[in-house]
Amino acid sequence: MTDKILREIGEFGIIDRIRRWTGSSDPALLQGIGDDVAVIEMRRKVLLATTDILIEDIHFKRSWSDPYRLGRKAIAVNLSDIAAMGGVPKYFLISLGLPKNLSLSFVTSFYRGLKDGSRRFGVDLVGGDTSLSPRIIINICLLGEGTKGGLLFRKGARVGDDLFVSGTLGDAALGLRMLEKGGAKGDASRLIEKHLSPRPRIELGQAIAGHRLATAMIDVSDGLLIDTTHLLKESKVGARIREEQLPLSRPYRKWIRSYSKDLYEIALAGGEDYELLFTAPPEKRKEILTLSHSLRIPITRIGEIVHRKKGLRIVQRDGREYSPDRLGFEHFK
Amino acid sequence: MTDKILREIGEFGIIDRIRRWTGSSDPALLQGIGDDVAVIEMRRKVLLATTDILIEDIHFKRSWSDPYRLGRKAIAVNLSDIAAMGGVPKYFLISLGLPKNLSLSFVTSFYRGLKDGSRRFGVDLVGGDTSLSPRIIINICLLGEGTKGGLLFRKGARVGDDLFVSGTLGDAALGLRMLEKGGAKGDASRLIEKHLSPRPRIELGQAIAGHRLATAMIDVSDGLLIDTTHLLKESKVGARIREEQLPLSRPYRKWIRSYSKDLYEIALAGGEDYELLFTAPPEKRKEILTLSHSLRIPITRIGEIVHRKKGLRIVQRDGREYSPDRLGFEHFK
Repeated sequence: MTDKILREIGEFGIIDRIRRWTGSSDPALLQGIGDDVAVIEMRRKVLLATTDILIEDIHFKRSWSDPYRLGRKAIAVNLSDIAAMGGVPKYFLISLGLPKNLSLSFVTSFYRGLKDGSRRFGVDLVGGDTSLSPRIIINICLLGEGTKGGLLFRKGARVGDDLFVSGTLGDAALGLRMLEKGGAKGDASRLIEKHLSPRPRIELGQAIAGHRLATAMIDVSDGLLIDTTHLLKESKVGARIREEQLPLSRPYRKWIRSYSKDLYEIALAGGEDYELLFTAPPEKRKEILTLSHSLRIPITRIGEIVHRKKGLRIVQRDGREYSPDRLGFEHFK
Repeated sequence: MTDKILREIGEFGIIDRIRRWTGSSDPALLQGIGDDVAVIEMRRKVLLATTDILIEDIHFKRSWSDPYRLGRKAIAVNLSDIAAMGGVPKYFLISLGLPKNLSLSFVTSFYRGLKDGSRRFGVDLVGGDTSLSPRIIINICLLGEGTKGGLLFRKGARVGDDLFVSGTLGDAALGLRMLEKGGAKGDASRLIEKHLSPRPRIELGQAIAGHRLATAMIDVSDGLLIDTTHLLKESKVGARIREEQLPLSRPYRKWIRSYSKDLYEIALAGGEDYELLFTAPPEKRKEILTLSHSLRIPITRIGEIVHRKKGLRIVQRDGREYSPDRLGFEHFK
């Protein structure tokens, strides 16, 4: 079978195919694809809405991944935002900018990844917009639901709270450095996979919020330091993070030396971990440990919340403290 | 005051400013900008969601407009989709891709346009994403509400219904041709303004749906023929459109001859009218006329719904009919 390019199929040909690839049996979805507006019955829940844009050569390179993983990642980064609130993801809209000469098989694989990455969590595509673009652009708007008292925000952390993070830090950012330097061998591929296929912590986020284990929560997407700063700003507090408590994976420890003299630099400032960062009073430690065991997700105490005027301080192995000057990657700078 | 460029302010500097420029007093908005996810209380309404992407040099050129109008248009094209359903627009999320060397004043004016274009209809910004991009990218996801029985869809048109359209057709598309050819003089600027500053028919859409005057409705964004085809496809019917009944503005009639030998070509196939196209049984004619007078918006009967197998037919002045082969602009083709 010869592959087709988008120019041969046209905008409405693409939309017709998308409609065939998707489809939902959710009775609350009164109108999905097939009109300009999706219509959803919400009943007594509160609505959650988040959006993220991925732009070719800014957020990803076509040569680094395949369209299937790209589709899965596009929905995963949005799912992670809903996870960090403890919400239930439900529906999404996708805007795509696609080059004229892109192959139909690229779009098909992309949607397959999108579908696999969303159906796992019971999430349906309900609408979108498709446009010509010289580079690939993917914008997802993800809608979810929650209960008014059962959500966690960036605000809410209190002085004396512990600071926890799930999983390990820095793997995806180190994997990205490897991709930029032309790939990797052996177990380094696990780091690259962390960059290409992030796993949103949906179950963990819902469990933390559902059992009221935390006071504030955010996902680590921009990097530990930047996202901690976001949480501190909204909560109007400071924090102390202990470097030697940062959870680092075995491949990270093995390969970091080839990329940085500082063991912790990429774990602190790198992005795209999509782990959950949350604060909880010390009396919740045991319950958090139990949850970590039952979900088989590592959760590590990496520091504590202090008074706002102390700001964000990093405690080194030798006990010395410093205030980080460069927090991590920032667009435009 | 010297203007700053985005590189000097950085991503979070931009977001802080956006937060200052916006802000909402809506009690149903439990969490707006300041977290990754917006949280909205919906109560007993159904939720409406639509998204549209605008890409520089595909959908607009910076030299054709100013950032204020661009902001107003970005929200207007989404409002038009909610209008076509008879819904009430409420909240939006915006993803922006911005070049590093863009001036801060561009972004400020853009947001002013966005704000003026949304506040008029009681719509608040609740979230977004900001990224670096070589070209300007604007993606809006607009959320609204409606009642389960009080909305209109593309589906629902019945054989024997009249086909109506609001306003005039072809002005924006003719204005775009003028911009492409280097601007215009005199009253031709009204056509260009129609392209740059579309007005979403929110009140009209709500009135048509609220008084149950129509059986199906869509906004004319891709062009009359394409959008009629969408409505026919979802309603499983055909239509006959009478050329000489198409509502054409005085400047359109005056300037069309410089751009096309066919008086109706651009009115039929041009896009971005953002007028409402709807179908209604003949017994509603009087009520529709009354509504047109009371809102001071022209509404014109341009044809009728026929059996599906007849497809879409255009009736010419001399009574001859034809099936259009080229419906209008389509991305990728």
